[in-house]
Amino acid sequence: MKINVNELKKHIGEKIVFSGFIDAIRDKKWVMFVILRDNTGKVQLTIEKSDENNKDLLEIMANTTVESTIRAEVEVMENDAVKLGGLELIPSKIEITSKAEPLPFDFNNLDGVNIDTRMDYKWLDMRNFRNTLIRQVESCMTEAMRNYLYKNNFIEIHSPKLIGTASESGSDVFEVKYFDRLAYLAQSPQFYKQMALAGGLDRVFEVGPVFRAENSNTNRHATEFTGFDLEFAYIDSYEDVMGLEEDLLIAGLSAVKKKYGDQILEVFGKEVIVPTKPFPKIKLKDLYAKLHEKYGFDIPKEDVGDMNAEAEKLTYQLAMEEYNSEFMFVIDYAATKRPFYHMRDENGKLQGYDLIWRGVEITSGAQREHRYQELLKNAKEKGLGEDVKFYLQFFKYGCPPHGGFGIGLDRLTMLLLGLSSLKETQFLFRGPNRLNP
Amino acid sequence: MKINVNELKKHIGEKIVFSGFIDAIRDKKWVMFVILRDNTGKVQLTIEKSDENNKDLLEIMANTTVESTIRAEVEVMENDAVKLGGLELIPSKIEITSKAEPLPFDFNNLDGVNIDTRMDYKWLDMRNFRNTLIRQVESCMTEAMRNYLYKNNFIEIHSPKLIGTASESGSDVFEVKYFDRLAYLAQSPQFYKQMALAGGLDRVFEVGPVFRAENSNTNRHATEFTGFDLEFAYIDSYEDVMGLEEDLLIAGLSAVKKKYGDQILEVFGKEVIVPTKPFPKIKLKDLYAKLHEKYGFDIPKEDVGDMNAEAEKLTYQLAMEEYNSEFMFVIDYAATKRPFYHMRDENGKLQGYDLIWRGVEITSGAQREHRYQELLKNAKEKGLGEDVKFYLQFFKYGCPPHGGFGIGLDRLTMLLLGLSSLKETQFLFRGPNRLNP
Repeated sequence: MKINVNELKKHIGEKIVFSGFIDAIRDKKWVMFVILRDNTGKVQLTIEKSDENNKDLLEIMANTTVESTIRAEVEVMENDAVKLGGLELIPSKIEITSKAEPLPFDFNNLDGVNIDTRMDYKWLDMRNFRNTLIRQVESCMTEAMRNYLYKNNFIEIHSPKLIGTASESGSDVFEVKYFDRLAYLAQSPQFYKQMALAGGLDRVFEVGPVFRAENSNTNRHATEFTGFDLEFAYIDSYEDVMGLEEDLLIAGLSAVKKKYGDQILEVFGKEVIVPTKPFPKIKLKDLYAKLHEKYGFDIPKEDVGDMNAEAEKLTYQLAMEEYNSEFMFVIDYAATKRPFYHMRDENGKLQGYDLIWRGVEITSGAQREHRYQELLKNAKEKGLGEDVKFYLQFFKYGCPPHGGFGIGLDRLTMLLLGLSSLKETQFLFRGPNRLNP
Repeated sequence: MKINVNELKKHIGEKIVFSGFIDAIRDKKWVMFVILRDNTGKVQLTIEKSDENNKDLLEIMANTTVESTIRAEVEVMENDAVKLGGLELIPSKIEITSKAEPLPFDFNNLDGVNIDTRMDYKWLDMRNFRNTLIRQVESCMTEAMRNYLYKNNFIEIHSPKLIGTASESGSDVFEVKYFDRLAYLAQSPQFYKQMALAGGLDRVFEVGPVFRAENSNTNRHATEFTGFDLEFAYIDSYEDVMGLEEDLLIAGLSAVKKKYGDQILEVFGKEVIVPTKPFPKIKLKDLYAKLHEKYGFDIPKEDVGDMNAEAEKLTYQLAMEEYNSEFMFVIDYAATKRPFYHMRDENGKLQGYDLIWRGVEITSGAQREHRYQELLKNAKEKGLGEDVKFYLQFFKYGCPPHGGFGIGLDRLTMLLLGLSSLKETQFLFRGPNRLNP
């Protein structure tokens, strides 16, 4: 297994093999400094020109280019004069394992580089340490959240992305040519998570792609992104769902802070703040009053019973000012503004919530309606009778009370690192005009 | 959090809430026995008819049906006379949380039930404990394999499933209507895993859906299944890849054996055998000779340089007889039979392998060709120049030596439990004639 830059200190005085990218070549009169890089950092390889034995090495290096990859047999030496970690590698053998052509742009200095060029050459863009860190942080966050769920007896499922009926919202769904008929790409695993509970799996989650055929070219919309979805049975109310989401996010953010907190602060200027339970919670009605009183904000008529982008931003401000919290739950949305499968209580009050983080809604969660007759009634009220017929069947033969939520993993990462666009955040962004690479 | 059947022993003498499905109602003259079920087992709820206080409870139960869900406030009592775990629940309050209609078939006795009916009502089929166990085992295996990778500094990526070019093998790819053009569904994350390595992430993996537009209605083909894919850099040869796969499978199978080994043996009659390193390894040429000598088998002319289903079966037999191993690596396949991105050595010898488990190939792994010029040559030889042009770009600007493999998670689960069909194995099977539910 490769020895990484951040492990070299343990090998001082040893002869090892070190591999990586050639970050820079500084050819001085008496010495050649070669800066090597891997995804944990940079290290200096030093080739003294006066040493006759180095002739071959110097010739190899003279014929290579930056961003080529190298495999070197080296001795790891302590050297306080070297800025990069106070050590240097002295090679006895060098092999260029791949030779790079001249790069189309300098990924270390992306300021003037068009975001489309960066996406066209994502594998170069990613070499910028900042962009490497995005991937590392997202993976770390996902790992910690998943392990929290495993520990709490959740089962991971893989629901189909090819579906026979355009469900939930008939618009914005991609059509697939499926032999002699049409299929559709799943917009969320919602119905299938719930089916698993009706099938007797008490707690399920899924991390997988979701597809939205929205023809909008904004920084916050993608046609494909990664959903982190879960659902669990035998809850007493949607407050159990909120409680689980608190624990899940605390687990994820704690892990990120521990492993990457310093680097995130340094590179992105963002502090990773691990929230404490319970997150503040506010009723929509009270929130409207507060936003009016404090910021003179009134929700537009068409959004009454719901939030809009401006309200989300101000809610963050309110949460910080009044609760010193980056997170805020908002409850008591209008049932008319929510999907038919969210439960209402006997007074018609919606048993769901949104979670606002750093000015953006990151989740809609709810207790779900698990009773067939009630669900049928809700669907009919929304005029969805036929569209969701297949889904309603899941609830005919007994289904435990349950709830859950979904988080857009890309959006979570974007907010965590303070990025301005999903184009920057996603491993490979997908939008109406972007299908490559 | 719900208390499960397998946790009740810890609560003897306590008043708790117990929730689950009603598995059976046995209405005797003096007593009503209600068998409750969750995904960890069954327990008996006992309602004495002589007790005046139970009148309401009995009435509630008289109005319900099996497979409805229940929430009961109970006292957990030890009772050696009760077969189900030597304990019973004595209720003081009962609530029917959902009422089941009569079921279309008895999921406890699936022998006479058509597999299509079972798939139509998957959420009922799943309630059979055997089928619950399939999902639990697959989740457990995935968890352990993922955690092995996390521990070894792998990063999880989420590559796009919507792609702009029909790559790798132009046939068998699903077309998607993508606004005013066409997109395609990814058949594997292969190229994107490699791109991530060219981008400086040294070790990546992905667990996600892959799509194959194969119009074949067999038990072993699905149009959508879950791939477990990984790729890692700075290897010395494909033997490093084989070594990692050994460790990965050992990690997965150890976890499954520990948690579910007894249940798998009981329910599926299959012993979970954790292999030891190194797995036996044989050259294709030597394997042909062995299969001829021992079983009189000769590979058909069109498959020379490769395996076929019969050869895989016999290889398993050979591995068991000669090495007492369920696993066998086969190496030295003909380069003509393998993808262009598998590396060949200076003599044209393929640097890849297949892994055979229980008579079926579960992986093709290889060191990949990471050098642009060589890759271009290989692609041209296969007549793929234009098709993979976008992919070749990833290797122009330096890329470390690397290798990897992919495992079909559904197939792995099928073999592990000795199931005969992916229709039984998958959470929701997808085939040319199956898109619902």
